[in-house]
Amino acid sequence: MSISTKQTLSQTSFLENYLKVRALTNELCEPLQPEDFVVQPVVDVSPPKWHLAHTTWFFENFILKPNMADYRVFDKDYHFLFNSYYETEGDRWIRSERGALSRPWVKEIMSYRAYVDEHMKQYLSDEEISKEILDVLTIGLHHEQQHQELLVYDVKHILGINPLFPAYKSFRGEINNTNLEEKFLEVEEGVYTIGYQGNDFSFDNEKGVHKVFLHRYRIQDRLITNGEFMEFVEAGGYKDFSHWLMEGFEWVKKENIRAPFYWLKHEGVWKHYTLAGLEEINPEAPVSHVSFYEADAFAKWKGKRLPTEFEWEVACKMHEPEVPEAANFVDERNFRPMPRQGINTQFYGDVWEWTNSAYLAYPFYEKPEGALGEYNGKFMINTMVLKGGSYATSRNHIRPTYRNFFHPHLRWQFTGIRLAENF
Amino acid sequence: MSISTKQTLSQTSFLENYLKVRALTNELCEPLQPEDFVVQPVVDVSPPKWHLAHTTWFFENFILKPNMADYRVFDKDYHFLFNSYYETEGDRWIRSERGALSRPWVKEIMSYRAYVDEHMKQYLSDEEISKEILDVLTIGLHHEQQHQELLVYDVKHILGINPLFPAYKSFRGEINNTNLEEKFLEVEEGVYTIGYQGNDFSFDNEKGVHKVFLHRYRIQDRLITNGEFMEFVEAGGYKDFSHWLMEGFEWVKKENIRAPFYWLKHEGVWKHYTLAGLEEINPEAPVSHVSFYEADAFAKWKGKRLPTEFEWEVACKMHEPEVPEAANFVDERNFRPMPRQGINTQFYGDVWEWTNSAYLAYPFYEKPEGALGEYNGKFMINTMVLKGGSYATSRNHIRPTYRNFFHPHLRWQFTGIRLAENF
Amino acid sequence: MSISTKQTLSQTSFLENYLKVRALTNELCEPLQPEDFVVQPVVDVSPPKWHLAHTTWFFENFILKPNMADYRVFDKDYHFLFNSYYETEGDRWIRSERGALSRPWVKEIMSYRAYVDEHMKQYLSDEEISKEILDVLTIGLHHEQQHQELLVYDVKHILGINPLFPAYKSFRGEINNTNLEEKFLEVEEGVYTIGYQGNDFSFDNEKGVHKVFLHRYRIQDRLITNGEFMEFVEAGGYKDFSHWLMEGFEWVKKENIRAPFYWLKHEGVWKHYTLAGLEEINPEAPVSHVSFYEADAFAKWKGKRLPTEFEWEVACKMHEPEVPEAANFVDERNFRPMPRQGINTQFYGDVWEWTNSAYLAYPFYEKPEGALGEYNGKFMINTMVLKGGSYATSRNHIRPTYRNFFHPHLRWQFTGIRLAENF
Amino acid sequence: MSISTKQTLSQTSFLENYLKVRALTNELCEPLQPEDFVVQPVVDVSPPKWHLAHTTWFFENFILKPNMADYRVFDKDYHFLFNSYYETEGDRWIRSERGALSRPWVKEIMSYRAYVDEHMKQYLSDEEISKEILDVLTIGLHHEQQHQELLVYDVKHILGINPLFPAYKSFRGEINNTNLEEKFLEVEEGVYTIGYQGNDFSFDNEKGVHKVFLHRYRIQDRLITNGEFMEFVEAGGYKDFSHWLMEGFEWVKKENIRAPFYWLKHEGVWKHYTLAGLEEINPEAPVSHVSFYEADAFAKWKGKRLPTEFEWEVACKMHEPEVPEAANFVDERNFRPMPRQGINTQFYGDVWEWTNSAYLAYPFYEKPEGALGEYNGKFMINTMVLKGGSYATSRNHIRPTYRNFFHPHLRWQFTGIRLAENF
Repeated sequence: MSISTKQTLSQTSFLENYLKVRALTNELCEPLQPEDFVVQPVVDVSPPKWHLAHTTWFFENFILKPNMADYRVFDKDYHFLFNSYYETEGDRWIRSERGALSRPWVKEIMSYRAYVDEHMKQYLSDEEISKEILDVLTIGLHHEQQHQELLVYDVKHILGINPLFPAYKSFRGEINNTNLEEKFLEVEEGVYTIGYQGNDFSFDNEKGVHKVFLHRYRIQDRLITNGEFMEFVEAGGYKDFSHWLMEGFEWVKKENIRAPFYWLKHEGVWKHYTLAGLEEINPEAPVSHVSFYEADAFAKWKGKRLPTEFEWEVACKMHEPEVPEAANFVDERNFRPMPRQGINTQFYGDVWEWTNSAYLAYPFYEKPEGALGEYNGKFMINTMVLKGGSYATSRNHIRPTYRNFFHPHLRWQFTGIRLAENF
Repeated sequence: MSISTKQTLSQTSFLENYLKVRALTNELCEPLQPEDFVVQPVVDVSPPKWHLAHTTWFFENFILKPNMADYRVFDKDYHFLFNSYYETEGDRWIRSERGALSRPWVKEIMSYRAYVDEHMKQYLSDEEISKEILDVLTIGLHHEQQHQELLVYDVKHILGINPLFPAYKSFRGEINNTNLEEKFLEVEEGVYTIGYQGNDFSFDNEKGVHKVFLHRYRIQDRLITNGEFMEFVEAGGYKDFSHWLMEGFEWVKKENIRAPFYWLKHEGVWKHYTLAGLEEINPEAPVSHVSFYEADAFAKWKGKRLPTEFEWEVACKMHEPEVPEAANFVDERNFRPMPRQGINTQFYGDVWEWTNSAYLAYPFYEKPEGALGEYNGKFMINTMVLKGGSYATSRNHIRPTYRNFFHPHLRWQFTGIRLAENF
Repeated sequence: MSISTKQTLSQTSFLENYLKVRALTNELCEPLQPEDFVVQPVVDVSPPKWHLAHTTWFFENFILKPNMADYRVFDKDYHFLFNSYYETEGDRWIRSERGALSRPWVKEIMSYRAYVDEHMKQYLSDEEISKEILDVLTIGLHHEQQHQELLVYDVKHILGINPLFPAYKSFRGEINNTNLEEKFLEVEEGVYTIGYQGNDFSFDNEKGVHKVFLHRYRIQDRLITNGEFMEFVEAGGYKDFSHWLMEGFEWVKKENIRAPFYWLKHEGVWKHYTLAGLEEINPEAPVSHVSFYEADAFAKWKGKRLPTEFEWEVACKMHEPEVPEAANFVDERNFRPMPRQGINTQFYGDVWEWTNSAYLAYPFYEKPEGALGEYNGKFMINTMVLKGGSYATSRNHIRPTYRNFFHPHLRWQFTGIRLAENF
Repeated sequence: MSISTKQTLSQTSFLENYLKVRALTNELCEPLQPEDFVVQPVVDVSPPKWHLAHTTWFFENFILKPNMADYRVFDKDYHFLFNSYYETEGDRWIRSERGALSRPWVKEIMSYRAYVDEHMKQYLSDEEISKEILDVLTIGLHHEQQHQELLVYDVKHILGINPLFPAYKSFRGEINNTNLEEKFLEVEEGVYTIGYQGNDFSFDNEKGVHKVFLHRYRIQDRLITNGEFMEFVEAGGYKDFSHWLMEGFEWVKKENIRAPFYWLKHEGVWKHYTLAGLEEINPEAPVSHVSFYEADAFAKWKGKRLPTEFEWEVACKMHEPEVPEAANFVDERNFRPMPRQGINTQFYGDVWEWTNSAYLAYPFYEKPEGALGEYNGKFMINTMVLKGGSYATSRNHIRPTYRNFFHPHLRWQFTGIRLAENF
């Protein structure tokens, strides 16, 4: 069941959703030791305990504090510690130093979660909630789902750069009857409608329904695999500047990049760190942990290109249900990209797909009022759009119009490649 | 007369063009002292003597060396010193250290220019030049015009950060009968054609003619003035995060930005450095030296937005001649933005205009073969498109489809603001 | 009982010493939560669990592995993870990233300690140990005592920069009958002998007994107090360049230094973080957490100077026992500098005292062979000598000849001031 | 004739000295082009025109402005531009950006020099000058001599990092009858007097005559040659950590150091840049352009050590005249280190010699009042003492007690090696 802001949705189902989403965050942390919750190996990673507290602060700060009578904040210092980037909400502990804080402990943060959950339960049970508050609450749930995804990225980074390569957890084995046959789906030229048109929840950055003209194009029906990407690696793709954007090639040289993140060559064999530990690379699984620069260079090396976000959205809507059904989401607990099976078009799940579209405002974009206006709009520069969700995304969190965005050099997140071309 | 690659254009007129373009570079350097040719106060600025040599190297390396029989290079070390960023052409002196080189002296570089010009004259007079070579030669002329513009940016930076505020040269006085009346031109929704369709020269990045759908919009018929921007400054616009992109606001705080580059408040009065020295700010002249971040924040503060590159191009084509006529270009030797006079729409010249479009490949973009393939395509990330040319642009260098691009934080170049809005 | 390398000392007493020293490390960690063991807020701080493992690695790597028959290392990856700076011992995890490792967990490291202790017990009980091995073992014990001291510095840093200001533990109250009367001890000019001449353990850097000529001087008999230093702060001492070394004043400006580390002004009252939490400053206790720059500037402001390491050593030997008796060492478990009581000369304990001597080799210094030659000699540049020990030093670890050393800008360690002057 | 502060010295001879010193600065600049005066390839180098102006500012600011009736400063902005580091004198243009200023031009600065010289001539001719002013004037002359030396360092850097390797000027050929026989001079243990005891000029840092005890030692009677140092290079000395201080070895690795500065291996042959251009290395000339780290590592590799500043001073006084006679100073216009000839002990001239003494205050050091108190004392940290002068030092500027100082990693200055040992 998808989360909805329709007035007909009862408060009961909200509470149910709330508890489900909150429970998943806790479940994702179960395999961790207290020490794992603290570290921040690079600025892009947040300590897991920070995610646990920040998502809780969201509900405390935007729901309980302004709305619940007699609510007392759990700890007055937490506002300073767990605000992420909301200038509206005042000063905050700087992001790059989140890993410098050993306190509050995980147990204290778990108490904070329980305290807020208890009050949320009471609040949602006792009072009649206005449409405006339900909207904020809905954002809070999607916000927590986004942080669940970041949490998995960050846990993988924390464990994956450790020379001991500890496993997060073990998984079921690989699927055998994969289908790597490749098809390019054709889309005819025309004026298409872009942006969210449904009645359920969507973010402000998907709104402002508008039209775009697309020339005809072809787009791959599945993701690029590890095996395909390894050909690029072995062909010297990282050494030939002609495939690369200049800033991409400077990044390759400065950071000494030779393969996707987490890949390492051990005694002549490529391995990679997965959430199950250090493993041989499955050539049939989708390649992951490539930056936009690598995705773009790979596409050029193949004589093709990345699709735009509009090409992706139009093709997805043609071939996939508007509300995703089974795909490799966090709901499956696979915790890794899976080889395509059967005849799936594999637009959803597995890994986010880089597009060749800069993350910018839609023509009719309107920034919401207040702190939540800082949610999406202020990031619309120097980032590229990604589509489709990953194995750490919740099924009810994703849609064809969903716009994710990252800086082009980042690759600790779960990112892959789909190709397109003119015809 | 515009530069053309049409076969009908005779070699004679090419030579004439060549000599004209080369002469302007020298003329622009006349007010400088030898010491001015050497410094590089920031990485984005190149020493003027580097521009003089690099543009000469372009003709030596891409025309004379491969094509002219018995040509001997002026100095074998210059290839290493004056290659800018062409990986195809091998190793080169790093960009950030251009200001560390006192040698070759200006006089030596002037000899280099004379030597190459002499050979170019001979080459263009004696031999029949193929279409392929004429194409490279044409690029060489446009390349030199681009460096003329950079040269003026860089000279202004070199002199303008000097506490003595020396003048580059003095100018004729301001124009009096300005017209600051503001009109928003309306454009109806529809499918429009984008990209260069003429027969004269254009860059690869303008090619790949294609269609876009535009919703109806309104676009200002002139540039934002210093007076209008000063209202933003005085209203505390630089201190209120709500107008800013996050990376823009971080830039404002880190760099302690309080006004456009070259503005300084002296005993309560705003002044700015112009190429004529430190002057009071003319409120009627177009504002210049704003970054994309400032342009975008100003637009939001006004309740409007920046146009996309497509909106700009379509409106320009509607209201301006395809081949620019009189406007404030370098041909006028004004060396400053001028207040709009009469009923001009002021799309051309004065200052480049930031658009809200990321600099990315057009759908049918094709990278040329060889070193010249590095000219435009490899910069297509993390930069924004600017349109229209400036007072340092040559009239025969600009067109409605011309796509300039800079990183969003840069503002030593001549950049201004035009607003747009939906309606 | 002091640790000794005399052959007469039995192996039994060695084992006893070993177990005592190892037990203190564990005791010092008892107040910590698992999360506290992981963080590294600045490069100079190591995560507590790193200290626990590194000191253990010392015994495993330098005693057990080369000497104990059939010894199997606890984990083969630990050599890479827990080597500190011994080039002789090969590659190692870089120091600045120690805080990026959540694994091994504290429990695993505690198992490592138990495993090595068990084997050390067996080894010291079963075999007859050579003089050479006893020497290394002795260094290992002093090494662990040094890391105990660093551990306390680092724990204080980790907790003290946390906005929650958590206490490490609570202490007994202040002593009342302090004696702040100040006396300057006089020493006559002459040739004095410097360096360790006893038969017990000392480090290589104290060896090479030699003579120095000292002009007559006077040296304070106690440490500068918080109250005295506060006068400097309140008199604007941090703002007047004339007291400062140039690099010191640049450091003050760049780091925005206004008081000793851990001091903060809260509603007009100076407080400081101590291991008992945020407290009002006791003006009678010795000032701590000053850099060499601050100590030197304070001395100049007072019209005096810091003593040289030779002046300090000569005066200490005159007024204190060679083997320290009661003083404020870690043995007292005070965990803070204490006001001077009675007629003590307060050369030992409380805080390390900056001298105006650069840490350089003594005339007859000889670097030991092998990895342990890297222990002291290679740090003899850009650091200043400190004398006397602190409240985190073990009583049997310190002597008048002991030479500690730190870079002049550092102040997270426990450092204070004693003045000297000519007469 | 040496510069003296004795009252008996007439003002006429002061004027004579003044004009001589000033003339040498101009002479040293004669081979330069205007472009050479501007650049600052690294922060330690100042543009030559800055030296020309700063030394002139010294006389204007400390002599003419406070003392000469009706003196008008040449340009009021020069105080801000050409103050070096005197906090007493207020704000100043930051050192690292000296190379960003193309103006004032060299010609303007030459006019500044002429203007100040003219007024100095008039001032010294017309008025009776007090002892206090003569003292400042004397410092001004020594100050200019120090900047002459820095000027030669900086010119060499500016030309020497240029891939064209332009010559500063050509020189007379090498001397043939070199004497490379090596003797170690023996000095017996005892109490020696250190510091300047004469009646002529000396700096504050040499004052405070005091005694030191020296154990007996042996010290080399000449400098280490290129040939001797090349053995260290070829033996892999830069790759073996065991010879190096830790910060030295980190510097070697980070900066990829493989030989002295200005050495480069070209087709298997070691060459080096000298002020005469790129040349083969003369194995008989003293090695130059080594950092303290390299000097120290070389000494350790040879099984010896560097002398302390006290050992050097005592030996020099034993074997050299107090007032230097013929040696390879700037007076000789050799502009390079020369092989030792005949039986000279070669303590003076050629290259400054690193000692193993940190630059710290002498026991009776007293900082002068006012701005000139900032001349020496505030640099007494993190630097090492050098002795003896170089081929860019004026003969009448140097003495056995002269204390030069540089940070241990610097090597663009003219620095070499003399060894010592115990016996």
